[in-house]
Amino acid sequence: MNLSKFPAPASRSAIRLALGAVTAGLVATAALVLWPEAAAAQEVGSETAFIFNTFSFLVWGALVMWMCAGFTMLESGSVRSKNASVICLKNIGLYAIAGLTFYIIGYGLMYTDVAGGFIGKLDFFYGPSADELALLAGDAGATAAVVENGYSVTSDWFFQMVFVATTASIVSGALAERVNLWAFFAFTAVLTGIIYPVVGAWTWGGGWLAELGETGFTDFAGSSIVHSTGGWAALAGAIVVGPRWGKFRSDGTVKLTPPSNIPAVTLGVFILWLGWFGFNGGSQLALGSAADAVGMSNVIVNTNLAAAAGVVTAIFVSRPILGRTDLFAGLNGAIAGLVAITAGPNLDDGRWAIVIGAVGALLCTMGLRFLERRRIDDVVGAVPAHLFAGIWGTLAASIAAGADFVTQLIGVVSIGAFVFTVSWVLWTILEKTIGVRVSREVEEMGQDAAELGIDAYPEFVLMVDQDDEPDYREA
Amino acid sequence: MNLSKFPAPASRSAIRLALGAVTAGLVATAALVLWPEAAAAQEVGSETAFIFNTFSFLVWGALVMWMCAGFTMLESGSVRSKNASVICLKNIGLYAIAGLTFYIIGYGLMYTDVAGGFIGKLDFFYGPSADELALLAGDAGATAAVVENGYSVTSDWFFQMVFVATTASIVSGALAERVNLWAFFAFTAVLTGIIYPVVGAWTWGGGWLAELGETGFTDFAGSSIVHSTGGWAALAGAIVVGPRWGKFRSDGTVKLTPPSNIPAVTLGVFILWLGWFGFNGGSQLALGSAADAVGMSNVIVNTNLAAAAGVVTAIFVSRPILGRTDLFAGLNGAIAGLVAITAGPNLDDGRWAIVIGAVGALLCTMGLRFLERRRIDDVVGAVPAHLFAGIWGTLAASIAAGADFVTQLIGVVSIGAFVFTVSWVLWTILEKTIGVRVSREVEEMGQDAAELGIDAYPEFVLMVDQDDEPDYREA
Amino acid sequence: MNLSKFPAPASRSAIRLALGAVTAGLVATAALVLWPEAAAAQEVGSETAFIFNTFSFLVWGALVMWMCAGFTMLESGSVRSKNASVICLKNIGLYAIAGLTFYIIGYGLMYTDVAGGFIGKLDFFYGPSADELALLAGDAGATAAVVENGYSVTSDWFFQMVFVATTASIVSGALAERVNLWAFFAFTAVLTGIIYPVVGAWTWGGGWLAELGETGFTDFAGSSIVHSTGGWAALAGAIVVGPRWGKFRSDGTVKLTPPSNIPAVTLGVFILWLGWFGFNGGSQLALGSAADAVGMSNVIVNTNLAAAAGVVTAIFVSRPILGRTDLFAGLNGAIAGLVAITAGPNLDDGRWAIVIGAVGALLCTMGLRFLERRRIDDVVGAVPAHLFAGIWGTLAASIAAGADFVTQLIGVVSIGAFVFTVSWVLWTILEKTIGVRVSREVEEMGQDAAELGIDAYPEFVLMVDQDDEPDYREA
Repeated sequence: MNLSKFPAPASRSAIRLALGAVTAGLVATAALVLWPEAAAAQEVGSETAFIFNTFSFLVWGALVMWMCAGFTMLESGSVRSKNASVICLKNIGLYAIAGLTFYIIGYGLMYTDVAGGFIGKLDFFYGPSADELALLAGDAGATAAVVENGYSVTSDWFFQMVFVATTASIVSGALAERVNLWAFFAFTAVLTGIIYPVVGAWTWGGGWLAELGETGFTDFAGSSIVHSTGGWAALAGAIVVGPRWGKFRSDGTVKLTPPSNIPAVTLGVFILWLGWFGFNGGSQLALGSAADAVGMSNVIVNTNLAAAAGVVTAIFVSRPILGRTDLFAGLNGAIAGLVAITAGPNLDDGRWAIVIGAVGALLCTMGLRFLERRRIDDVVGAVPAHLFAGIWGTLAASIAAGADFVTQLIGVVSIGAFVFTVSWVLWTILEKTIGVRVSREVEEMGQDAAELGIDAYPEFVLMVDQDDEPDYREA
Repeated sequence: MNLSKFPAPASRSAIRLALGAVTAGLVATAALVLWPEAAAAQEVGSETAFIFNTFSFLVWGALVMWMCAGFTMLESGSVRSKNASVICLKNIGLYAIAGLTFYIIGYGLMYTDVAGGFIGKLDFFYGPSADELALLAGDAGATAAVVENGYSVTSDWFFQMVFVATTASIVSGALAERVNLWAFFAFTAVLTGIIYPVVGAWTWGGGWLAELGETGFTDFAGSSIVHSTGGWAALAGAIVVGPRWGKFRSDGTVKLTPPSNIPAVTLGVFILWLGWFGFNGGSQLALGSAADAVGMSNVIVNTNLAAAAGVVTAIFVSRPILGRTDLFAGLNGAIAGLVAITAGPNLDDGRWAIVIGAVGALLCTMGLRFLERRRIDDVVGAVPAHLFAGIWGTLAASIAAGADFVTQLIGVVSIGAFVFTVSWVLWTILEKTIGVRVSREVEEMGQDAAELGIDAYPEFVLMVDQDDEPDYREA
Repeated sequence: MNLSKFPAPASRSAIRLALGAVTAGLVATAALVLWPEAAAAQEVGSETAFIFNTFSFLVWGALVMWMCAGFTMLESGSVRSKNASVICLKNIGLYAIAGLTFYIIGYGLMYTDVAGGFIGKLDFFYGPSADELALLAGDAGATAAVVENGYSVTSDWFFQMVFVATTASIVSGALAERVNLWAFFAFTAVLTGIIYPVVGAWTWGGGWLAELGETGFTDFAGSSIVHSTGGWAALAGAIVVGPRWGKFRSDGTVKLTPPSNIPAVTLGVFILWLGWFGFNGGSQLALGSAADAVGMSNVIVNTNLAAAAGVVTAIFVSRPILGRTDLFAGLNGAIAGLVAITAGPNLDDGRWAIVIGAVGALLCTMGLRFLERRRIDDVVGAVPAHLFAGIWGTLAASIAAGADFVTQLIGVVSIGAFVFTVSWVLWTILEKTIGVRVSREVEEMGQDAAELGIDAYPEFVLMVDQDDEPDYREA
């Protein structure tokens, strides 16, 4: 039922499948007149269901948009002060770019006429349907056709667009403090306009992965489709762009680069947690029946349980793994728990949500160290939190949420191979053309002063040389 | 249909016009019984529509209230650290004052018995209707009368009140760093209790502007009524209060006063962007029919497109206009795009939203320079973002959203003349009585220490003399 | 009607009482078929009402969760920089712990088979009902049974869980800067898993206080049940843990410990204010009828009026009481106004809301001084804002919201005696075992560096010795 996240407009049968409530509403309406007592509970009219479905997309979509602010706070607090302005610009810029590219071509590539294939078609400037425009122009006769769709098509676009932005947000954090502003924006445009839509077409768009095996690939709200996609793109970028100067020393130690503003990081994580209620809850995709309302509630509760378990787990395991009770690990544990549950929050027993979130946080905490040993520089731990936990969550959906393990594994591998390869090629092309990273001088001076001519905190006197600071994190 | 934003309680016919869904619901109910198959899609009951309409006001209204936090972050991050506490106090104070004055007299002046005129009447302490009080007291017989109104009257009050606060927020930013705390609060009380309600009475209250020409003045969610009103009041204040000491040097250069906390400014803009979904989406004013749900979705999508176009445009044009890729311009570009689309987000083709937002951001970016050349000191760029973009957006509603250009122009001029004149007089009276600005000593020491006896960041060591800093922005 | 906040699952009659809309819906359905014209306004179907009720819990619950971010910002901005990270960890940790303990045992103790008694029973791992699981598994026949409950049981759990977290948040602020991280977490687990649920069982769970007198104890959204409970627990902790070293000098003066980040504190208060619309509005507990929609609107408007009155009052009275126009008092005034109205926001005349909020803010402002004279160290003023204003609000519900004064007084005293005593015993046990406060050396160095090995703002140069600063607050 949640296989096909955003049914292609042309695929009416898919719409009925996804939004069974509408059909149920019609049946109920007839029943209501004929047998009022029997139909008592089954009386959500189709137009009422339409409003519920649409409003759910809008309200929860607004919360998902808010996650961009969460990433911005998390990232601007995690980088050193000298790069905090540029990361703000990258984040508001990526949200703007994602909103435009997904409007211009992304949605069409993801949903129009995918039909079991690999990609939709070019269908520029997605907007209200002809029926909706007629209704908005005052033609009440268009109501039935509009309502039959189950939800306003632009509310669906909105909910989907904010997911795209999340994927791009993951990349900005990993590559912070050295990636060139314009290379990042160029990558973002392709990621949000093409790469993500292709992965989306395979799955929520009804493409080949959606039709794989008996159940199809299962990813309720995007552990793989959104978070691993962002994680793979970030990993490819981190490899091509390379680590910050001096991050990995020749003697094998790792230079300390502590977050410059811990309360900002914490605020960011709270924003993400809040936004995730919309991310997963809204991915129920419908609110027009008791079944959908119950499902949405259950999804939100499991989402919260997984995140809570992630925090507690990360706090406990950070001491043996990282050598101290680590706030940053605890905060990333929340995110990892959330990412892990995202593929299958529609499970019956909340204890599974706790287990899935806890394991996600454990993998994330270990992953922070794993990447450092590989000398891959991920400033905010985006790869452990979004990719490692995302893979785990996608596979774990076969434990508690009814997915087929082999199908899930094929999905994980094929999405990973596609996104990593294309991203790696794209980052490499950008490296050969406009360049992907700032000069060593700019990196030392800070991107804020060099690229934007400002400081994030121009009045606060800053430490002159971070290298002399005690290095709590050295390996 | 959106002409009369908040129908006056006495004007039942206006209510039916604005909330056609209610009437449609009654028709549908009858039809449902007589011809169930024909009425299938038209079955939102009037009480269900009432709940949708009311809940929409409450949820979106809460997001608009959240914009006050956005202005607070934007402004406290934009001023220098020594004035960051006072601007926090001004912002929470103005929201409190607006909430009280609009309760005590504002709503009545705006909506009670305007009937094509210039102002409503004194109708103190707006609260639940008599029917609603009866229903709350347990008289189920009052339900029909309550439902006939289309929405809970206090939910409408709430949605409207948060708009008033937005207007006042615009003023606080422009006049930051030198306006006296108490003069600002006094101005706020009059602005929110009288000036804004008068403008509102002319338009959404059903006054003379609403009846002008064939279509009436069109301002869907308040490019003029909210944002230009705030902008004119801010401009008058900026002229009377005068620029900060030393801002404009005798040699024609402009002193640098960079934002003290860029991540806070960015957070503020994200909050505003999020809140704007409520601001514009909620201004659909109804959610009780498929047409309203479709309209609301379309409005939110166009709002997002305009803001996204504003960001991208401002980032690109900031280099030729301001001499560098300017984060602050990019952030203000988002706001300008949002302000510009606000008069007519209910347009059919999202490409117009992109154009309107982009032009708004262009005007805003140019306007930053324009004001500096006029030696008008607007600390956060509130006048370019809210007034210039607001005028553009109001006129642009005649391009894509069906408004009449001449009527729009009359509205822009008359609102501008009224608000600017009254504000100028009021600021001048305040100047002659309690004084409108702090002394030069206080300004140099900072308002935080002088007026409140605190520092915003008492533990951070601050730069002693900003004047010695490199001046990136000098003309 | 709001007496029993979250009816115990077994108590069907209570459910019908609380959610009269459901019954009304069934009646309306029959009436609709038989007398369509008479039933016009009464046509919210039971399944539609179910969706409204559930969605209301989810949306408003998400806003209440957001309050945790508000407390985090308020507290991390209120403490000195050297303790700002630990307070972030405490806050995200307490939300995670509350979410787990209330899942594992808390909800059962609060709501299962209380029946006029003192505590519910051990009912581990609260989750979807059997009917809901059947419905989620595709058994449409379970719809009627699910709908009969009025709302999804997990949406109720979610709304309730976020209230528990609020209680724990109050404690973290009062004890900041010296309480041991692990002692705090241990206390939090017991507070959220046992102490709060017992108070909840007495009242919203249908226990002895709910059945006291003719009306039962009245506390609409928890002035006592949530806020005073947190306040009493915080007060007991503040006494056992003791004040910060040097806070109260031997000469009777009080050492200045000003908030380290005023914009963060202000942001926190705005978040709390926003979240309170969910806190009080959602506590209407239903949205499936016009009466509930009207009630919810009225509650939200009164909540806003009380907060606004709190701000204005505190700003005015801070000068005579504290010796200066005090931003921190103004911000706490908002919270005190909100806490005070929370017991009875469902009053008819908004002027009462203003009075109740204003008095709450007055008591809070005076209370800041009162505690200092008693040499009780409450870092953020949590006890005045949540306990003093909470007691006042609970008693005030007998003025405007129809409660019985004596019953209210018994409730205040019994809740206070229980929570304070148990908390005092628990803090004392913790003191004797794992210890409740950090060493003087850790306190001077700061908990961030000592307990977590990080700094909240590692790059900002900080004042070395706060003791030499001018002490604005000295008595």
